[in-house]
Amino acid sequence: MQTTVGQLAALIEGAVEGDGSIAIRGISSIEDAQDGDITFAESDKLLETAARSRASAVIAPAGSSFQGTTRKPLIRVKNPRFAFAQALRIFAPEPKVYQGIHPSAIIGQNSRFGHNASVHALAFVGDNVTLGDNCVIYPFVYLGDNVAVGDNCVIYPHAVLHDNTEIGSSVVIHSGSVLGTDGFGYMFIENRHYKIPQIGRVIIEDDVEIGANVTIDKARTGSTRIGAGTKIDNMVHIGHNVTVGKNCVIVAQVGVSGSVEIGDGVILAGQVGVKDHVTIGDGTIVAARTGVIGDLPPQSFVSGMYGRPHGNEMRAQAVYGTLPEMQKHIKKLETRLAALEKDAVEKDTEA
Amino acid sequence: MQTTVGQLAALIEGAVEGDGSIAIRGISSIEDAQDGDITFAESDKLLETAARSRASAVIAPAGSSFQGTTRKPLIRVKNPRFAFAQALRIFAPEPKVYQGIHPSAIIGQNSRFGHNASVHALAFVGDNVTLGDNCVIYPFVYLGDNVAVGDNCVIYPHAVLHDNTEIGSSVVIHSGSVLGTDGFGYMFIENRHYKIPQIGRVIIEDDVEIGANVTIDKARTGSTRIGAGTKIDNMVHIGHNVTVGKNCVIVAQVGVSGSVEIGDGVILAGQVGVKDHVTIGDGTIVAARTGVIGDLPPQSFVSGMYGRPHGNEMRAQAVYGTLPEMQKHIKKLETRLAALEKDAVEKDTEA
Amino acid sequence: MQTTVGQLAALIEGAVEGDGSIAIRGISSIEDAQDGDITFAESDKLLETAARSRASAVIAPAGSSFQGTTRKPLIRVKNPRFAFAQALRIFAPEPKVYQGIHPSAIIGQNSRFGHNASVHALAFVGDNVTLGDNCVIYPFVYLGDNVAVGDNCVIYPHAVLHDNTEIGSSVVIHSGSVLGTDGFGYMFIENRHYKIPQIGRVIIEDDVEIGANVTIDKARTGSTRIGAGTKIDNMVHIGHNVTVGKNCVIVAQVGVSGSVEIGDGVILAGQVGVKDHVTIGDGTIVAARTGVIGDLPPQSFVSGMYGRPHGNEMRAQAVYGTLPEMQKHIKKLETRLAALEKDAVEKDTEA
Repeated sequence: MQTTVGQLAALIEGAVEGDGSIAIRGISSIEDAQDGDITFAESDKLLETAARSRASAVIAPAGSSFQGTTRKPLIRVKNPRFAFAQALRIFAPEPKVYQGIHPSAIIGQNSRFGHNASVHALAFVGDNVTLGDNCVIYPFVYLGDNVAVGDNCVIYPHAVLHDNTEIGSSVVIHSGSVLGTDGFGYMFIENRHYKIPQIGRVIIEDDVEIGANVTIDKARTGSTRIGAGTKIDNMVHIGHNVTVGKNCVIVAQVGVSGSVEIGDGVILAGQVGVKDHVTIGDGTIVAARTGVIGDLPPQSFVSGMYGRPHGNEMRAQAVYGTLPEMQKHIKKLETRLAALEKDAVEKDTEA
Repeated sequence: MQTTVGQLAALIEGAVEGDGSIAIRGISSIEDAQDGDITFAESDKLLETAARSRASAVIAPAGSSFQGTTRKPLIRVKNPRFAFAQALRIFAPEPKVYQGIHPSAIIGQNSRFGHNASVHALAFVGDNVTLGDNCVIYPFVYLGDNVAVGDNCVIYPHAVLHDNTEIGSSVVIHSGSVLGTDGFGYMFIENRHYKIPQIGRVIIEDDVEIGANVTIDKARTGSTRIGAGTKIDNMVHIGHNVTVGKNCVIVAQVGVSGSVEIGDGVILAGQVGVKDHVTIGDGTIVAARTGVIGDLPPQSFVSGMYGRPHGNEMRAQAVYGTLPEMQKHIKKLETRLAALEKDAVEKDTEA
Repeated sequence: MQTTVGQLAALIEGAVEGDGSIAIRGISSIEDAQDGDITFAESDKLLETAARSRASAVIAPAGSSFQGTTRKPLIRVKNPRFAFAQALRIFAPEPKVYQGIHPSAIIGQNSRFGHNASVHALAFVGDNVTLGDNCVIYPFVYLGDNVAVGDNCVIYPHAVLHDNTEIGSSVVIHSGSVLGTDGFGYMFIENRHYKIPQIGRVIIEDDVEIGANVTIDKARTGSTRIGAGTKIDNMVHIGHNVTVGKNCVIVAQVGVSGSVEIGDGVILAGQVGVKDHVTIGDGTIVAARTGVIGDLPPQSFVSGMYGRPHGNEMRAQAVYGTLPEMQKHIKKLETRLAALEKDAVEKDTEA
């Protein structure tokens, strides 16, 4: 696509500084910028870097008159990062979507599709499935029986939604993710692991995005539930009977054990692990690679192997790094102490 | 389905206390219980909670006459949790399974299927594949050449069994798991990583269950083997030439490096990592997120970044949390020691 | 296949010691060796073990005349491990590959395939896809629009290459891997996570191998790039805008956050996590399970929760294990110090 600085400024509600007629053909970060690209700078310092880049225009912070060495046209906005994201949306190619139901797709009985449904080649749709309006089902998607999907959902190749999974509206599920597989539940009885049947399901609320190769297990009874607006990165595992609140962020390779309850607005950074049956309060931040082994009150900020308050963990880690010196130090103190003791004994003996 | 307390008691071998004619239409945990559900309580305390729930009946421990405030009918059993699992099995909907070989499935040459085989739409079966009796192959399953599957196996959508993989009877493989991919073996020769060909295979013994998006690599030569009765959770990685014993439990996101030998009845909790060529003795428990970096004798219980005996790790961790205070404490001791030393020198000087 | 010690020696450029006419029908490690197998030994000690095995011949180190108790024929070579790898390649069964384009594959418009293309059953190829010569596309592979694949590539079942992904020559992608899914980028604006569109792509250079169930996200703008000769194990996650250099080794379950830059010849061992925007210098080794939280200069060797220099981490860990004793020791020192202090006060009082 091609536009101009002025047209783009209108779309992202910014003010042009310089020549609004300059053509813009692409969008990129400062480091990748080519001639014809627009980029963005969140600070005067970055604006100076952008000025020296090959970009043709820069989205810059309002409330500053700094221009640095640039003669490039600027679009002044309140939040350059957000304006850049909006501009990205404008430049994002409209994904080409199959119109209708491809003849090679397998469609079960009693399935009902909303307006404008796209079910692409080699997709599998079970019985009694409902799809809302404007849903896009990519090749190799598996929708089990009684799956219900809301409006405006996109389900990418190889995603698997097992029987009875329920998906809200505006949900995106990326490739290879598996929703509604059996929870991991056994009892050791008479020298073998007896499987505890898992007869619940998975519910995904509106506006959730689920990355690639994620697994979300169905509940033993009842539901495993992901709250509205929550975003889940690649290769996250969510165990059975977990409840995740609204607007949470769960970064790649996190593992959440069974029956965990996670509040609203919680951030679990990459590779975190959460013990089963733990409750995590609203607004809590769990730093990357942390092990959460007990309940966390709202607004906690924890890190480390054993999920300590972040400040404590940082202080303990700092000392940890000096443990060999501390050990030597203690040895020296003991030597000095022993010398004093010997001295005292000798004096006593003298006396 | 609908049953009565009395009928259910007969099936799970329990004794009815109260009105056995009460209708039961569902089953659930105490917290989710609805009118018409049966739930379970493992203790008198939980029975009191169950009494206040909306459940219509409760599976309760035998050997207690405690009834709390409940007027609900009880089914007294020796092991309420096990009886609940049995009742779940009764209530679990019989999964609807495709009868026969779907015309859209691709079936290779010389493949032989047992009685009652179900090969659903868009499944791929290579050449010389054998399936035992009562096997269910879901859509998008890939069975490579010479794959052998025993009786009563279920292979869920998108599972991949590469050439020569051998599966016992009563094995369940969940969606997206990949068995028999190349082990990760290279040699750095003349400035590049030369691939060591992997010509072995994967053997899964009877009664194994493998979760979703698991990967099990084939051996360089010989076999990677998962022992009978072992249960593997989602997103576990098992490297080449690993041997896992019988009745092990391997929880989600565990990684087992190549040539590891794991005994019988071993539990690897979530996100554990095991170094290559390590031997883990029978009955060992490895706590969640532990790094196993050396051999473990039978009946070990280890935890922490470096797989220490659990008690040691817990004690070390407890002190770790107090390291900043310890550091201050040592500084104070030094100050006091210096004061004594100064004092001693002064006295010597006086003397 | 069947060969003789002499024929094999010629192929792997070794010198026969003993009877070169002995038949060889298979190849294996010492522990699995059967009659008719050739195995290898890297040292005189292992040669002694091999001598007692059931193998019919042994690849042994040149420059030693040690034969131990063996009467088996030997093939003397400079590097027995490499010669064994070469021999494995000779014994590896030629994978049977579908010839041509299977009629059940779905092929988009304007797609161009090189000589000898194999596109197997139920594969999906989008529009404007190019495949080089001798490429093998297995069942259930998804190639999005504008995907470009070089010569001699193998793409295993269920791999997903999203739109615009570019693959060099001699690349292998194992089952279930997903390339080019959206990077994980959101802004929290007006109480919801606003998605930052991801309009870049993934570029895989020549001679890269990617394991099973890996995810590599496309860039926000520009490219996520994996350098030539790099080998990636199963279940690795590579975030958006990451650059991985040449000839790196990334072991199973590693997670690399967005915008990380990794130099050439870097080794990330299993379950490592790398923070976003970190730079890792050439030749760096990151030990298993390490958290990398800051830039690392070339040739670093780091380990532990917080990515310390490996020697420091090992020394700190050693002391960590003795923390409970250290704590007791400090308590004793304090008791002795207090006794001295009391003594001193008493003496002062006496004086």
